[in-house]
Amino acid sequence: MADEAPYNSLPNISAWAKSLGYLGVQLPSWDGRILDVKQAAESKTYCDEVKGRTNGLVITELASHLQGQLVASHPAYDSLFDAFAAPEVQGNPKARAEWAAQQMRYVIQASANMGLSVTPSFSGALMWPYLYPWPQRPAGLVEEGFRELAARWKPILDFADQHGVDIAYELHPGEDLYDGATFEQFLEATGNHPRVHINYDPSHFILQCLDYVGFIDVYASRIKAFHVKDAEFRPSAKSGVYGGYLGWKERPGRFRSLGDGQVDFKQVFSRLTAGGYSSWAVLEWECCYKDSVQGATEGAPFIASHLIDVPTRAFDDFAGAATDVGRNRRLMGLS
Amino acid sequence: MADEAPYNSLPNISAWAKSLGYLGVQLPSWDGRILDVKQAAESKTYCDEVKGRTNGLVITELASHLQGQLVASHPAYDSLFDAFAAPEVQGNPKARAEWAAQQMRYVIQASANMGLSVTPSFSGALMWPYLYPWPQRPAGLVEEGFRELAARWKPILDFADQHGVDIAYELHPGEDLYDGATFEQFLEATGNHPRVHINYDPSHFILQCLDYVGFIDVYASRIKAFHVKDAEFRPSAKSGVYGGYLGWKERPGRFRSLGDGQVDFKQVFSRLTAGGYSSWAVLEWECCYKDSVQGATEGAPFIASHLIDVPTRAFDDFAGAATDVGRNRRLMGLS
Amino acid sequence: MADEAPYNSLPNISAWAKSLGYLGVQLPSWDGRILDVKQAAESKTYCDEVKGRTNGLVITELASHLQGQLVASHPAYDSLFDAFAAPEVQGNPKARAEWAAQQMRYVIQASANMGLSVTPSFSGALMWPYLYPWPQRPAGLVEEGFRELAARWKPILDFADQHGVDIAYELHPGEDLYDGATFEQFLEATGNHPRVHINYDPSHFILQCLDYVGFIDVYASRIKAFHVKDAEFRPSAKSGVYGGYLGWKERPGRFRSLGDGQVDFKQVFSRLTAGGYSSWAVLEWECCYKDSVQGATEGAPFIASHLIDVPTRAFDDFAGAATDVGRNRRLMGLS
Amino acid sequence: MADEAPYNSLPNISAWAKSLGYLGVQLPSWDGRILDVKQAAESKTYCDEVKGRTNGLVITELASHLQGQLVASHPAYDSLFDAFAAPEVQGNPKARAEWAAQQMRYVIQASANMGLSVTPSFSGALMWPYLYPWPQRPAGLVEEGFRELAARWKPILDFADQHGVDIAYELHPGEDLYDGATFEQFLEATGNHPRVHINYDPSHFILQCLDYVGFIDVYASRIKAFHVKDAEFRPSAKSGVYGGYLGWKERPGRFRSLGDGQVDFKQVFSRLTAGGYSSWAVLEWECCYKDSVQGATEGAPFIASHLIDVPTRAFDDFAGAATDVGRNRRLMGLS
Amino acid sequence: MADEAPYNSLPNISAWAKSLGYLGVQLPSWDGRILDVKQAAESKTYCDEVKGRTNGLVITELASHLQGQLVASHPAYDSLFDAFAAPEVQGNPKARAEWAAQQMRYVIQASANMGLSVTPSFSGALMWPYLYPWPQRPAGLVEEGFRELAARWKPILDFADQHGVDIAYELHPGEDLYDGATFEQFLEATGNHPRVHINYDPSHFILQCLDYVGFIDVYASRIKAFHVKDAEFRPSAKSGVYGGYLGWKERPGRFRSLGDGQVDFKQVFSRLTAGGYSSWAVLEWECCYKDSVQGATEGAPFIASHLIDVPTRAFDDFAGAATDVGRNRRLMGLS
Amino acid sequence: MADEAPYNSLPNISAWAKSLGYLGVQLPSWDGRILDVKQAAESKTYCDEVKGRTNGLVITELASHLQGQLVASHPAYDSLFDAFAAPEVQGNPKARAEWAAQQMRYVIQASANMGLSVTPSFSGALMWPYLYPWPQRPAGLVEEGFRELAARWKPILDFADQHGVDIAYELHPGEDLYDGATFEQFLEATGNHPRVHINYDPSHFILQCLDYVGFIDVYASRIKAFHVKDAEFRPSAKSGVYGGYLGWKERPGRFRSLGDGQVDFKQVFSRLTAGGYSSWAVLEWECCYKDSVQGATEGAPFIASHLIDVPTRAFDDFAGAATDVGRNRRLMGLS
Repeated sequence: MADEAPYNSLPNISAWAKSLGYLGVQLPSWDGRILDVKQAAESKTYCDEVKGRTNGLVITELASHLQGQLVASHPAYDSLFDAFAAPEVQGNPKARAEWAAQQMRYVIQASANMGLSVTPSFSGALMWPYLYPWPQRPAGLVEEGFRELAARWKPILDFADQHGVDIAYELHPGEDLYDGATFEQFLEATGNHPRVHINYDPSHFILQCLDYVGFIDVYASRIKAFHVKDAEFRPSAKSGVYGGYLGWKERPGRFRSLGDGQVDFKQVFSRLTAGGYSSWAVLEWECCYKDSVQGATEGAPFIASHLIDVPTRAFDDFAGAATDVGRNRRLMGLS
Repeated sequence: MADEAPYNSLPNISAWAKSLGYLGVQLPSWDGRILDVKQAAESKTYCDEVKGRTNGLVITELASHLQGQLVASHPAYDSLFDAFAAPEVQGNPKARAEWAAQQMRYVIQASANMGLSVTPSFSGALMWPYLYPWPQRPAGLVEEGFRELAARWKPILDFADQHGVDIAYELHPGEDLYDGATFEQFLEATGNHPRVHINYDPSHFILQCLDYVGFIDVYASRIKAFHVKDAEFRPSAKSGVYGGYLGWKERPGRFRSLGDGQVDFKQVFSRLTAGGYSSWAVLEWECCYKDSVQGATEGAPFIASHLIDVPTRAFDDFAGAATDVGRNRRLMGLS
Repeated sequence: MADEAPYNSLPNISAWAKSLGYLGVQLPSWDGRILDVKQAAESKTYCDEVKGRTNGLVITELASHLQGQLVASHPAYDSLFDAFAAPEVQGNPKARAEWAAQQMRYVIQASANMGLSVTPSFSGALMWPYLYPWPQRPAGLVEEGFRELAARWKPILDFADQHGVDIAYELHPGEDLYDGATFEQFLEATGNHPRVHINYDPSHFILQCLDYVGFIDVYASRIKAFHVKDAEFRPSAKSGVYGGYLGWKERPGRFRSLGDGQVDFKQVFSRLTAGGYSSWAVLEWECCYKDSVQGATEGAPFIASHLIDVPTRAFDDFAGAATDVGRNRRLMGLS
Repeated sequence: MADEAPYNSLPNISAWAKSLGYLGVQLPSWDGRILDVKQAAESKTYCDEVKGRTNGLVITELASHLQGQLVASHPAYDSLFDAFAAPEVQGNPKARAEWAAQQMRYVIQASANMGLSVTPSFSGALMWPYLYPWPQRPAGLVEEGFRELAARWKPILDFADQHGVDIAYELHPGEDLYDGATFEQFLEATGNHPRVHINYDPSHFILQCLDYVGFIDVYASRIKAFHVKDAEFRPSAKSGVYGGYLGWKERPGRFRSLGDGQVDFKQVFSRLTAGGYSSWAVLEWECCYKDSVQGATEGAPFIASHLIDVPTRAFDDFAGAATDVGRNRRLMGLS
Repeated sequence: MADEAPYNSLPNISAWAKSLGYLGVQLPSWDGRILDVKQAAESKTYCDEVKGRTNGLVITELASHLQGQLVASHPAYDSLFDAFAAPEVQGNPKARAEWAAQQMRYVIQASANMGLSVTPSFSGALMWPYLYPWPQRPAGLVEEGFRELAARWKPILDFADQHGVDIAYELHPGEDLYDGATFEQFLEATGNHPRVHINYDPSHFILQCLDYVGFIDVYASRIKAFHVKDAEFRPSAKSGVYGGYLGWKERPGRFRSLGDGQVDFKQVFSRLTAGGYSSWAVLEWECCYKDSVQGATEGAPFIASHLIDVPTRAFDDFAGAATDVGRNRRLMGLS
Repeated sequence: MADEAPYNSLPNISAWAKSLGYLGVQLPSWDGRILDVKQAAESKTYCDEVKGRTNGLVITELASHLQGQLVASHPAYDSLFDAFAAPEVQGNPKARAEWAAQQMRYVIQASANMGLSVTPSFSGALMWPYLYPWPQRPAGLVEEGFRELAARWKPILDFADQHGVDIAYELHPGEDLYDGATFEQFLEATGNHPRVHINYDPSHFILQCLDYVGFIDVYASRIKAFHVKDAEFRPSAKSGVYGGYLGWKERPGRFRSLGDGQVDFKQVFSRLTAGGYSSWAVLEWECCYKDSVQGATEGAPFIASHLIDVPTRAFDDFAGAATDVGRNRRLMGLS
């Protein structure tokens, strides 16, 4: 169990997390106050030093969402995303995308230096304004979009492959990879790249009414990271999934503190276990109604109570034995 | 019962509709082959002439969706919407918006000339790319958007008021008015303009998981037109409301022929009746699985079977009588 | 969190409640063994004294249900309600109603003396035998009923207003105010009196199949007290909401200990928080299957686990900034 | 299929029903313009005459609801029910109850004279104001109520037994027999009288959220008459089963025209068939939204489309044969 | 639309079917009175003759369920299935299985002679007594069972391949192929034989609570025949899916006449259309409550009302055009 | 609360159970290492000795499932069940059945010696291969099967009656008593034997989609033992209740650790309490996903949190009083 906490220094995070009983923490890699990602990419010593300052807390992954976001952006959002980029590339989308790709490479190298094998990220988006087919989506737009997206990510993915790191895309509205169908199109466009994976977060699926439990059964082999985050979607006579341009408190779809939303975590943990998932369960908290401290205090034991120890032997193996072909055939009336 | 049919000449439409047993037709006002809207605006004689060419079919409304669409458009969609504009204003958003406003005025005048009191339309959209709050929606954006939208529509609405015509906005994804919440914000931005109304179409609410039956109870007094159109939303483990950039046949949300989708029309007609709606029920057909002729052939009797004759007296008024205060008080043990 | 406990002396209640970890208690105002309401109305000193005998427990409200009940009663129930009245007015409905009004005034004054701003109560009932429209409800009966009810309560409400106290009617079958619709009719009959409020108790709504979550959103501004009480309604092939004249254990609708019924308290606390409710959550226990001590022992931590600390800042305000009109307009493609 | 129509002369009813394709009609026995029940009780000739005036339509039952209603009435409703009684007994509950018992005997005799074996009726009510257990229902009230009710009905039931006629109580809010539980208590109080039966009407069960399909399986052997009547219960945030003292159009529970409500008639007809019901399916219409003529015009074919011809042989009896004990034992491995 | 009717002579079937408006009929191939399957296998002339005696009705498929059934049978059912075999092989399971394989080859040849490309069938069963894992299913039993089953069917499938005929197994309890999972295991055991297909019948899936709609999406490419048959599963407090050894009328799972059960045929026909199914919809009737004639009379128009004409062009192709890569890239803000 | 634990020595079980906070344990009676059932039947001293070795843990019942299983077995399962029998009777079904009956008598006597009044067991099965009516179930088979089963059990039940012990059959797929309907047929075949009872285990009902809550209300008087065991049934497009011959992890129906499945234990404990059940709640654990130690560690407090202390007095008896006939009659308007 780990925590993706928006705190601004590593000692702060680690002390706080320890006090909540956390074993690990997913580290935001875009905040220089927490981690100098370039230095971490270049110096294993620095990485060891960082790991030494965590009060014994395990660093589970380096999160690279904001860097991934900037790898591709439709012009309609350019000015809004500029705040996530270095000042020198702001206002220059082309330079910014190149800078973002470099940042991704730093995160990958830093992950490898830290002994981590996966980084959760965002895909960025070129087609998001065209999600609804009105005006009619022009022929070839989607194919072209995924072609371009793959072209930008392929070098990064190859670099990740060289360093033994998976990129686990968090499927998220606002990104071009927001559900299983878009993930499959991207996967295909990258030639089924072995480093294209998923950061599973059921909260984003609740808000798009996707079968988030069935999702696990279909994509189990590609799920490499997991955000434990809750959400609720409660449509009304006034608004539905598009939210009426309302704020978080008023729109029908909302993130919630763990246990306060609609995610059936009993099933999520069961299906992940059935699918062989064996990495961290990372608490992510965003809630418009409850305070963050309460959310974390309740969230940690909530996750702990959902963890599953896999059995060492089958419950009904007391009669288990090697295959006896003869008896089997006799049971079916075969000589 | 009427039909919004995409046919390219009035006699064609009217003959076809008559053969299906239709009583009326909602006329697209943007196709010059069917109606010269400028001429209709300027000449009542022309209007009478048009009405004389319908084989006795009633013209129920002039639809002004495409004109309304062009009153406001975010740049991301400019090139896609240009096809709906006159050649001379294509590529020039500002000129195009002015042209669209003029077209709306023509439709309003034409409606009045034809004795019609409502035109269904689209609001256009300035904010649609920002429907999901990622990136975080900047403070004031929504207020500014509705302010601008109202500023563009106010003169048109006033013009409509002078001609006794209501504008019934079809709440539709891709437009800034797509649900009850956005309708209310627009209504407020126009100072509760008496001509701001709704073209109720449950299919668009199915696709956004909005309570389309409850909607009627809340907004009954503002519903002035009605599209009888069916739809289904069947999310899967692969995709939900955002549709995975898939085509109509593959995305979870789809329009369907009447009776093949999920709209509970028994309830829709009941609530509209309860709410006092007394205008036309207009068949609109879009279906990716069924042929349009079959859709229309089945759709007409489908609507007919849902029409409700309101009662002329209450079923339990056999004992009905004037208020008898004395007896009422005695029943409650008073005086 | 507080407790409405049917114990017959204040020290008993307070000691017991303290041992369960309660912070406060809603005090029944009709049991002389617990509180002499006339004395409390007349003497602030006595009030302070009472408060000094609670072992530090907070008195959250004075409950005035039985006094309110007697303000209006249909003759069919007169003999059953007489037990709640002083001996000298029993058998004399008119005198009893006047006595009840005086008792209400005492409670109001006592509340003010104790520094309390709300008293939960019952409205009484004149029309309850006519809830089902067979025999056909005579014209004007309902209007007359609410007129009379308002006439009796107006002086009490005005008195409450003078003392800065709200009357929070518990919407309850058997009273004329039992749902939102009846509350609205009463509110209107009192001229939207500023002291007419609601004691929200979801258990009574479960038993009448009312949308108890949606209720909060509609009436949030009028909810001034809150009973945390659970219930279940499990209709069968033999009986439904009217209960077949069966006892509590056999009828389909039953109160239950907290957590054993069907109330979705996660949602109740969320919507109350969203609606700005900031007063006490008072445990009320009535259960035909479980012992009261177990009910209280489990109920206290149940409530504690549902309390919500409201956030001090929005979870996504890291990018928050003042409104930038220029940027907003550029985002929408406006000059 | 038959019709319970509130028309004021037999020729009118029969002509109208014939034009709708009805085969039979349930005759209201309380309207002298349609049937002189005393004369029908005393003269078989008159009965034959009446049957001769029906244009060949079958008279299926004589309905005795209003007479049954007056056999027992709580004082709270006395003045409202007086309109159903003969003028000479109005205002005199005791005389009225005796008069009603006599009317019931007339209906029974008249039924026998007409060759009918069942009369649908109401039980009347003594306890209805005490349906909800607040104020607490006093010990013994329910037992006393059913004892009195049985005492009044026993002589009538014995009379019915002598004439070979069943009394089929319509379980109906406002009567003391309103669900299965109350029916069982009454049945027991009458010593399981062989003439105590049920007029099944699912609409009243929808409005009390009772499992109306399961009801048939439990009480099949006692169902002797059947009203095909639809209803809907659509609770809201403002009101539930008790209806907020609102009118039919506004209260959540409403009768509806056949097919417009929530009754699953496919199941109702299937379970009645499975339970061996073999009498008439009688259309009853009450709807606040739809006109009665439309309701009847649609209702007749609606019922026709639900009628079930029972099979003359089992679908899988092609291999059917007499029991072969030897083979059966061999199949189970028995000698 | 066609009919699988258990009638004992071809003229009877065809006359009856014609009178009901059927276009075709699925012919049982095991009843010598209807078809001499050996002769049909050997003589195209005989086949033409048979086709000439159908009153113009199309023969849609030759059904080979009973022959397929006998290809493999667990001893527990041997004596029960003997009735379906020729007298000379009864009591001799080995000879009977060989006889059945020969019969299958006749059906295949006969189908080819009649110009038919698919025969619906049963797989037979070796493992059915072991469906529930108590006693614990011994290791290897299932693998051995499918190996044997495939070994028996492979030669028949190869023969079918030589004659251009598909075998469409009806997935059916009592057969080893009863759901998607067993179909897949068999398919794999046959080396993905190109002639292994499915006769889709939703009624059997209702009775095993399988997602019969989702089934179509998963197995669309293997569905080559379609039984339109309805069913209902209504578990109770007394029995569930295993049926309590009760008869058809009493067990919770029952076949029903079309429209009387729980199959959502709107969805079934939609998904089959979406999946490209283009063969016949064959009415199959088995119902314990309704007579077969009524079942057929209602079933034929029921199917007709569900047939879907596929569109000849997309509903929104009015703006359709060839891919314009330049515009697409400009829309996404690319050079 | 007790535990049915598959451990191979009594001290092991009792120590382990104590450490988990258990109060009692249901003892498997078929494992000689735990209990010598013959000796226990013959010697009360031995029984006292065994009870002395449990570290103070209560022995709640002796489980006799495997002995009961062998009382009757269809030949198809003979070789699989042989492992549960003594070597000398293996391969000889007749001798084995007699041996099993003797073992049952030992268990009964041993139970009596230990002061226990119930033994949970299995019925064995003769008809299980014929659960689905294909091939058509031959006339009389079921009657013959229950006749034989009753004939075998009657002497054992009489013996049990002589020793004051109930046999509580666990209704379980694979046995002939697997639901309420089969239990009723067996009960009738034994002449309503007073020792025929039920070991209620909701997990087996979840897997057959039976209304396991309603079951309690119907059979409350016959429930004498209770296994607290969880399960889930999650059908898919590939498989349903019959499980596709898949293993536990893949089949839709699975046992689960307490709290991880679909059993609504809040309701189960409530209905058992309402039905007067007053014996032990025995944890049974079988789960393919979670380790047994975790299952037990979580299961014990899970059960503890569901136990209900029944009330010593009614919550609303504060107004309770003896029946007052006079007042009751006055309330109903009777003199």
